[in-house]
Order: sequence, then structure tokens, then C-alpha cells
Amino acid sequence: MTFNKVTIIGVGLIGGSLAKVLKARGMAREIHGAGRSRETLELALRLGVIDHMGQDSVRAVEQADLVVLATPVGTFEPIVRDIGPHLKTGAILTDVGSVKGGLVRTVEQLLPAGVHYVPAHPIAGREKHGVAESVETLFQNARCIVTPTERTDRTALDAVKSLWQAAGATIVEMSPESHDHVFAAVSHLPHVAAYAMMCSVSELNAGEDQYIDFSGAGFRDFTRIAASSPEMWRDICLANAKNVVDMIDRYQFVLSRMKKAIHRGDRAKIERLFKQASDARRGMQ
Amino acid sequence: MTFNKVTIIGVGLIGGSLAKVLKARGMAREIHGAGRSRETLELALRLGVIDHMGQDSVRAVEQADLVVLATPVGTFEPIVRDIGPHLKTGAILTDVGSVKGGLVRTVEQLLPAGVHYVPAHPIAGREKHGVAESVETLFQNARCIVTPTERTDRTALDAVKSLWQAAGATIVEMSPESHDHVFAAVSHLPHVAAYAMMCSVSELNAGEDQYIDFSGAGFRDFTRIAASSPEMWRDICLANAKNVVDMIDRYQFVLSRMKKAIHRGDRAKIERLFKQASDARRGMQ
Repeated sequence: MTFNKVTIIGVGLIGGSLAKVLKARGMAREIHGAGRSRETLELALRLGVIDHMGQDSVRAVEQADLVVLATPVGTFEPIVRDIGPHLKTGAILTDVGSVKGGLVRTVEQLLPAGVHYVPAHPIAGREKHGVAESVETLFQNARCIVTPTERTDRTALDAVKSLWQAAGATIVEMSPESHDHVFAAVSHLPHVAAYAMMCSVSELNAGEDQYIDFSGAGFRDFTRIAASSPEMWRDICLANAKNVVDMIDRYQFVLSRMKKAIHRGDRAKIERLFKQASDARRGMQ
Repeated sequence: MTFNKVTIIGVGLIGGSLAKVLKARGMAREIHGAGRSRETLELALRLGVIDHMGQDSVRAVEQADLVVLATPVGTFEPIVRDIGPHLKTGAILTDVGSVKGGLVRTVEQLLPAGVHYVPAHPIAGREKHGVAESVETLFQNARCIVTPTERTDRTALDAVKSLWQAAGATIVEMSPESHDHVFAAVSHLPHVAAYAMMCSVSELNAGEDQYIDFSGAGFRDFTRIAASSPEMWRDICLANAKNVVDMIDRYQFVLSRMKKAIHRGDRAKIERLFKQASDARRGMQ
């Protein structure tokens, strides 16, 4: 499988790493990079991650066989509104966004007939950022979720699956709605919870000492994801609002049970709850 | 400063590492290890961490100049009830517990006159466990909180400070009550929050797939401390119940604000809260 022209919109860690995979596997004759930041694109060009650059996404996608949306999910709708009418018939549009659900339905409705949208979400490490950190091996042994709908073209779906398999990822197929419920739980909720922890604790101080100056490795691990981009996570939470709100409720319910057990001094109940959690965590690889 | 006889009750990672410091610095002529587990004590003896072992704490503390309580905080009261009457006049009792406050007052009341109690809490990494993991360098560049009260003997306080300085730690002095407020925030609350996250998410599944199978590095970091000992954390939460309950309330308040902002789609407010958190986290070393 070789694409003549691939356009990657948003050449960061994920977009850049995917570009490297496409090059290494000979799956793209030429790769165009598009995005708002001229600096990023120039760096990507200099590093050889892309062959051509352009800040104008509309021009960058013309005649592209494969277009990859690798920008924050909050930008998907306006970008697709812009580029949709300029995608060629038979083009495949895919994305790497961490929200699917309603967003997938929105993108589908904005595309002209004959353009094939295949929603995807590779679960790749995001502690580092930017094209300079991109590596061809980023997706190896990772999972990549694809969330086809009843409108998804099966040939395009297979092409996108092959792409991620070539990147070393294991494909999991689920509905856009299931995806959003799962990721509200395992990703969006933890981010909200880590942000809330930092807000709760960072303002506390004892004289000149900040409370967080006394934090150890546990607090640092727990709050590491709170360093993530506030804009990106705002958009993710908004795009998956209902599930995120439900998960916060679920989490608060458990917190309240623990709080009450501690308040009452109910040793058996505290231990039962903590042990359930600890067993589950130890059971993870 | 050299102690003739030091007894360490609970020869695990912390107790064992402190024993190694005492040996390396020539601060103890002989080190006795005491504790419930014969296996652990035999291992500590074989590794040369201690010179003598005994499961009977009462006998182990006889004639000791320094006794270190390095068992879980839930055991302090019964142990001190047992050993208190057998401590020699002038002996120093110290501990490494992560709760102070009321527990310090309880221990003080149980001790006979002439025995000097100096409460301490070294902030050392606890991801590994057991005497086999103990290292002389564990406390280097760590903080060690000492929480003297109006009853604390100043000479004994200085001796315990010197001990932790010799271990490479920086001493911070605060009241037992301040200590417990600070650590409710930066340590006890995060543990409860991580346990609650695991309880919230671990039971969710989509058919054969567990939701947590889709978790990435962020979730793993966030929940790492949920693998901690349920019994130990039950006892810590109970010993610091009021502060822990207050901190859970504080945390739930912030979570509710975030939840409402997401529910209402209040972009500006979500971003403001997330940004406050993210700035604070990025500001940590």
C-alpha cells in the first residue's frame, strides 16, 4: 500500500512520528505538512520528517490521497469545514484524536460524498511534545483504536488499519460511543482529577513553605499529567462532556464512600475499599 | 555521637536504611532488630544490616540508648504500651511515621518520665519495600520533618536531628499538627484519590475488554500509589482522619467546580482552572 500524496495537519509528536513510519515503510511518495506554526513546519522540513510544508491547510490537502488530522480535537470541526470541499474524491481522511463520539458524527456530516473518513486514536505516550521528539517506533506495541460507523467505507478502513499495523500497533475496533466512555474513564477523568489535585493543594502554604514543597515521589507521579496543555484538555472535556461529567460523578461517589468510612472510623470498610483498589492496580502490568 | 545500643523495631526499607547509615557513620556500637516477622529479621541479620535479632520487642529494647519505631503507624500505640515500661531512663525513642498530631500526644502520654520521645518523619521514596532494598543513601537530599512538642527534651531532639543530618537529610521543624495538615494534603489525600480512581475504573468493562486495558502512561503514573499497602494507608487515614476528611472535602469542592464548568460548557472557566493546575505542576521541580 503506497499513497502518492499524504498531508499531515499538525506535525507534532504524533503527526511527526506517523510521518516517519510512512517514510520508513515506503508508504508515501511525498508527505506534506500543514499547520498554524511556521516554525514547527520549518523544523519538520529541516529534520526530513516532511517533504513539503504549507500553513494553508486547504492548499496542502489538494490532490492528497491520505489526510491525517493530528491537531488538538478542538480544531477538528473548523479545519474540516475549511478543507472538506477541497478533498479529492476517493481521498481518505483520518485523525488521531482522543475523542470520537459526537465529533466523528460532526466530521462525517461536513465531508462531501466520496471522501472516506476513518476515525482512529493511537494510544501513544504523550509526555514529550513536538516534532523534534517524534520517532518511528512511537506506536510499537501500542494499541490503536479505530471507531468506524455505519457510514465508514470498508476499503478505507482496511487501509488505515494497515497503516497502524505497519506502525507496530495492535488494532482494536469499537464504536465511537464506546470509545468515548472508555477514555472518559481511563484518560479524561484522571486528567481532571490531577488538575483538581493541583488546584486543591497548590495554594496551601505554611508561612513561607508551600505545602507542595513537602511532596514526595507519590504526589509527583500522581500529578504528572496535570502539566498537560490546559487548552487541549479543555477541548477534550468539552467534546466528551457528558461522559466526563458522568465519570466525575462516579469518582466523587467513591470518594464520598471513602470519606464517610474514614470519618466514621470504619476500619473494615476502608480496608475493603483500599484493598479492592490496590489489588486492581497490582494486577495491571 | 555514638549510641551503645540501638534497637530498630520494624526492619524494612526505612528501618534497614537507617541501620545502614548508623553503621556507616560509626554511630551505633550494636544494632538490634525487632519485629513480627522472623524471616525479615533473619534476612536483615544475614545481610549485616543488624547485629542481633529478636521477635520480642520488650527484650530487644532493654538497655537501648536509642529505639526507632519503623513499623506502620497503626502499631505505634500497642508497641509503646508494651515497651514503654522497659525503656531505660535517658533512652531516646524516635519514629519514622507519616502521621504525627494526636499520635505523638498518645505516645508521649504512654512513656514513663525520663524517656525522651522525638517524633520524626523522613520523606523517603517508598516505591520499593523490604530490608533487601535498604540503602545507606536513601535519605540523601531528602527532607526529614521533626515535630517536637512542649514536652520534647532539647538534647534528645538535637541527637535525632544529628542522626538525620548524618543520613544526608535536611531537617525541617514543625508542630505535629502542622505536619498532619501538610501531609494530609500532599500525601494522604493523593493516596485516597488514587485508590478511589482504581475503584471507580477497575470494574468497568466492555464485553471481554477491561477499561483499564486501554489505559496509557498517564493513568499508570496517576494510579501508581494505589498499589500501596491497604492496611498501612487505612491506619494512616484513621490516625489523621480529621485532616484527611477535610482535604477530601476540599478536593471534592474543586472537582465539583470543574464538573459544573464542563457540564455548562464554560470554556473560559475550565481553561482557567486547568491552567492554574498546570502552571503549579510545571513550577514543581
